[in-house]
Amino acid sequence: MSSRPRAAIILAAGHGKRMKSAMAKPLHAVAGRSMLDWSLALADAVKADRKVVVWGAHAPDVKAQAEAAGAETALQDPPQGTGHAVQQAQDALSGFEGDVIVLYADTPLIQPETVERVFEALDAGAAVSVLGFEPDAPGGYGRLIENAAGGLDAIVEAKDASADELKVRLCNSGVLAMPSKLMFELLGEVTNDNASGEYYLTDLVGLARGRGLPAKAVKADADEVLGVNSRVDLADAEAAFQTRARQSAMVEGVTLIAPETVFFSHDTMIENDVVIEPHVVFGPGVVVKSGARIRAYSHLEGAEVHGGCEVGPYARLRPGAVLKTGAKVGNFVEVKKAVLGEGAKANHLSYIGDAMVGAKANIGAGTITCNYDGFLKHQTVIGAGAFIGSNSSLVAPVTIGEGAMTGSGSVITDSVPDDALAVSRAKQMNKEGWAARFRRAMSAKKDKIKKG
Amino acid sequence: MSSRPRAAIILAAGHGKRMKSAMAKPLHAVAGRSMLDWSLALADAVKADRKVVVWGAHAPDVKAQAEAAGAETALQDPPQGTGHAVQQAQDALSGFEGDVIVLYADTPLIQPETVERVFEALDAGAAVSVLGFEPDAPGGYGRLIENAAGGLDAIVEAKDASADELKVRLCNSGVLAMPSKLMFELLGEVTNDNASGEYYLTDLVGLARGRGLPAKAVKADADEVLGVNSRVDLADAEAAFQTRARQSAMVEGVTLIAPETVFFSHDTMIENDVVIEPHVVFGPGVVVKSGARIRAYSHLEGAEVHGGCEVGPYARLRPGAVLKTGAKVGNFVEVKKAVLGEGAKANHLSYIGDAMVGAKANIGAGTITCNYDGFLKHQTVIGAGAFIGSNSSLVAPVTIGEGAMTGSGSVITDSVPDDALAVSRAKQMNKEGWAARFRRAMSAKKDKIKKG
Amino acid sequence: MSSRPRAAIILAAGHGKRMKSAMAKPLHAVAGRSMLDWSLALADAVKADRKVVVWGAHAPDVKAQAEAAGAETALQDPPQGTGHAVQQAQDALSGFEGDVIVLYADTPLIQPETVERVFEALDAGAAVSVLGFEPDAPGGYGRLIENAAGGLDAIVEAKDASADELKVRLCNSGVLAMPSKLMFELLGEVTNDNASGEYYLTDLVGLARGRGLPAKAVKADADEVLGVNSRVDLADAEAAFQTRARQSAMVEGVTLIAPETVFFSHDTMIENDVVIEPHVVFGPGVVVKSGARIRAYSHLEGAEVHGGCEVGPYARLRPGAVLKTGAKVGNFVEVKKAVLGEGAKANHLSYIGDAMVGAKANIGAGTITCNYDGFLKHQTVIGAGAFIGSNSSLVAPVTIGEGAMTGSGSVITDSVPDDALAVSRAKQMNKEGWAARFRRAMSAKKDKIKKG
Repeated sequence: MSSRPRAAIILAAGHGKRMKSAMAKPLHAVAGRSMLDWSLALADAVKADRKVVVWGAHAPDVKAQAEAAGAETALQDPPQGTGHAVQQAQDALSGFEGDVIVLYADTPLIQPETVERVFEALDAGAAVSVLGFEPDAPGGYGRLIENAAGGLDAIVEAKDASADELKVRLCNSGVLAMPSKLMFELLGEVTNDNASGEYYLTDLVGLARGRGLPAKAVKADADEVLGVNSRVDLADAEAAFQTRARQSAMVEGVTLIAPETVFFSHDTMIENDVVIEPHVVFGPGVVVKSGARIRAYSHLEGAEVHGGCEVGPYARLRPGAVLKTGAKVGNFVEVKKAVLGEGAKANHLSYIGDAMVGAKANIGAGTITCNYDGFLKHQTVIGAGAFIGSNSSLVAPVTIGEGAMTGSGSVITDSVPDDALAVSRAKQMNKEGWAARFRRAMSAKKDKIKKG
Repeated sequence: MSSRPRAAIILAAGHGKRMKSAMAKPLHAVAGRSMLDWSLALADAVKADRKVVVWGAHAPDVKAQAEAAGAETALQDPPQGTGHAVQQAQDALSGFEGDVIVLYADTPLIQPETVERVFEALDAGAAVSVLGFEPDAPGGYGRLIENAAGGLDAIVEAKDASADELKVRLCNSGVLAMPSKLMFELLGEVTNDNASGEYYLTDLVGLARGRGLPAKAVKADADEVLGVNSRVDLADAEAAFQTRARQSAMVEGVTLIAPETVFFSHDTMIENDVVIEPHVVFGPGVVVKSGARIRAYSHLEGAEVHGGCEVGPYARLRPGAVLKTGAKVGNFVEVKKAVLGEGAKANHLSYIGDAMVGAKANIGAGTITCNYDGFLKHQTVIGAGAFIGSNSSLVAPVTIGEGAMTGSGSVITDSVPDDALAVSRAKQMNKEGWAARFRRAMSAKKDKIKKG
Repeated sequence: MSSRPRAAIILAAGHGKRMKSAMAKPLHAVAGRSMLDWSLALADAVKADRKVVVWGAHAPDVKAQAEAAGAETALQDPPQGTGHAVQQAQDALSGFEGDVIVLYADTPLIQPETVERVFEALDAGAAVSVLGFEPDAPGGYGRLIENAAGGLDAIVEAKDASADELKVRLCNSGVLAMPSKLMFELLGEVTNDNASGEYYLTDLVGLARGRGLPAKAVKADADEVLGVNSRVDLADAEAAFQTRARQSAMVEGVTLIAPETVFFSHDTMIENDVVIEPHVVFGPGVVVKSGARIRAYSHLEGAEVHGGCEVGPYARLRPGAVLKTGAKVGNFVEVKKAVLGEGAKANHLSYIGDAMVGAKANIGAGTITCNYDGFLKHQTVIGAGAFIGSNSSLVAPVTIGEGAMTGSGSVITDSVPDDALAVSRAKQMNKEGWAARFRRAMSAKKDKIKKG
């Protein structure tokens, strides 16, 4: 990596009409992260000290979210082409001297290593470095015309290309890097003297070459530069991400029984020797340690799962769920902001929220921590080795002592001492013959309704 | 569309032995609708005034379901070919004069627009209009031989075709339209003088051409005319439907994070800016309005979901579930014949059946509406802003007033006034040291059992 | 099948470093069965009287599991090639005379019929019979060079192959059969005089041919001999198994609405006219009888489901679940070691464990059988026609009589006579105005916290 400072200009002002959305296109998500955030994260990953997001007047949310993420912003209004868009960032970058890369907030999958190679071409002497790719069907893409010396000679739009030029498979992704000073100087020379009346960023290559400056094309995988213009593209980008993430997890030693049914988030961290069964979904912020098993239909967000844990099937771990070594969360169990100690179990039909559960505690089927009174959330503490009877309601704030037990169906409102049993239960009464009489009466009633 | 009346004859008498089913082939479903109903719906979509279903003696259920759907029926017994099958419908259509189309109850995916084009060829002067398609492997299909003028000259069975004819890729789908009078007149001339001893509908083309009448081939996508003869074909038809439905939803502005894991019904209606997470299944009769989010593993049937709602993960909405704007139904919650008012929430492990839930009511985890007494279903009414404590049992018929609360674990059998708190709860007793004594006793017992 | 005894030597000593696993490669599972067990099951299926598993010193678990499965074992330490590995089994097979086949504990999908054909080549006079396959990309595989008479002349390693030999598409799978005596005799002649210094099993072909003995190549589908060296391969093997199992189920008359989302176990048995909805997972030991419907998101292990049953959506059947004809298990219901009688229903949010449920009994939403006291499991018996009220806790051991009822929210600790009603319920109290006062107090408190 060169020692020159870097800046990223992120173009995010397009309308994205084919999305058919009330939400601006850059705010649509891939793998649980907005495309705007993907582009900002990419800029961060290549150590861009400055980030400027160019937004359009129709989408102030883009500005707001860019600022929330710590980026600078520049308004492009009205839109007059990509060259014009980049020019809007000039003020924001006044005083900056270094290399500038132009990125796009609808192209979420470019890898940092790829951008690094774009910058490296500048280090190696190029005045302009352009990212190309070889699509299966080059069709209408602008072609990157290279010379015999391996330099980039020109970007030719498909409609202006000769038959020979159309045979070139290397196409323009739009991503381009230049030293800042030269970029803004040449942008001043770009004209809108063309059919659409727009200022094209791609003209920078011709202008640089016109001054005898060398340009360079750098190649990316076609998957990386997949641009999103519709929900179909969005699904394609998601699929490309998932394919990459699944492959990478398997190579690192994670068993995916049915990789095509498992969905990762952009930041999912899974260690080796984790087994993931079919139909599992990871939301953001999940860490799963070596030796855990995530069973079918589990849904995890913001959760930490340690070795030897078994999660699911049908377990939902929500943010703040921490499962210590060997803990088990079973079917139809929801865990939120709760720590389950080593070897603790909540195997069936329970809601464990805002709780601390001690090691080896056993939480019976149907247990609910009643953590919310309509206004505030309260804490439930369950001691190590405690045994919570089935269908218990634990009304927080409440503490169940170590080794304590609660009777099935109890509503526990007061704390329970260590090793005590707590029950709150009305006496069972059996009314002999009642059910038979009821059936007779109801059958008669039902007949009457039918005849009615 | 022409002003001539239209009729549809639907062939549904085949045995479908490769289905290996006790159920007649036309009653097997694609996208939640029987193939028989698909063909009847297609006839309705092209405004066929008359519909005649030709059924076989082995499958009286086909007759029953056709009649239940308002169609006429005609028995073909024994089966003697497609021409013979169509002839059986003649009596049912006596008095009808107009255009007749022959459809198939094992070909569920033909689009109304395609059938419209078949009729249009009659409007344009053809005496016979045949629907063709270009399969990847034409193999044994009959070939549609067109003449230089663009007319259809003949249908040639693969086994009778010359080498040149076999190179023709346009194949016969079996769908054919003719003016009714001509159709039945020519059917009288069809013979069974062939290897299989059957009367072929396809002979009508040759007979018409023999009279110097023009015929025409109309082309369909190969996917549309996929015929179902086995469960493998049935799965292929389902897949073709789903691919089409997913693509169409995305084009209309619906986000499908993982389209390949989402299954629509034939009548699912989703507005734009709905987000559908992975692994979602729609049964019949669902409407989702703009701005709702359907989270992973949700299952919806006969439900109406308004904007701003969040459904799931793991939510089951059954027929009659109506979620007003901003309502939330969370994990492991089942809603049936129940209206959730604006902003109402049922987030965890609940069953809400036969209920009216007021705006902003909050239904705690583990709540059950006890709507069934073994004979009749009863109604639960929950007022606006009410707060139902966790693990409550609401024994219907019962009304919880506006702004009322119920204590956790309560069984509510009597109505609760507005703004009141209802509790039914036994006093909690803590028995000191009981759990420790129990453990000692049980450990001893367990040891004894082991030594047994 | 010949009358000669058969033995299988299963090579299981490889390191499998690309698995990146603390668990030995042969113990990783495909379709719910370890690859080691797949190879042992294959040996059993072709009636191998003797099975010897060759294990490596790094993986004593392989030895243990092989012995647990009734196989003999032989240590290969250090590893010196496949020929050397087979030689280690000689002692274990001392006294055995018959045909020996060499199988691999990382090649789980070879069909018994295929191995049968390998043995048949010996019956037909071959001294060595080798299993080949035609991969899409033969690349580095050893080539099976056949002679004009259809015999096998040699196995040529890719790196030693001539240009013509590289054009041969038939490759060596490694599976090889020989009469035992000849095999061990020739193994004594194999040298490690090659680049890697290993003893190659494949040299046996050349040695046999050198003695003028005939060899034969037998062809398998490429899918069958897919070897597993990484988690990616493991997922590929799983996918190949699932594709085969789904196809086979459909051909036999099972409806799979979305076959690509349904996962079978190695031993799943489904009869015709079963409908399986999307997103269903079968663990080991499941039998589903004709006429049942398995709804979306159901998870079955060790369960038996009879005709007319409806399971799911979101039903979890665990080992020992038996659903008699027409029983229903609905959403968010877990059934373990429990028999549901004919027409019995548990439709919502319940846990039924260690139970006998009589015919037509109806188990209300939220019912829990409290079967575990922290030490022992106890039995719940529910009589025919009983009606269990919602949110009931049945504290086992307990018996609910035939036709008996329990009130909603009851905790049933004592047995209930036939036709009786059992209730355990505290009186409901309504505290007028309490909720309104609570809201005022809490709002004030919340404001204070915010300002705080």
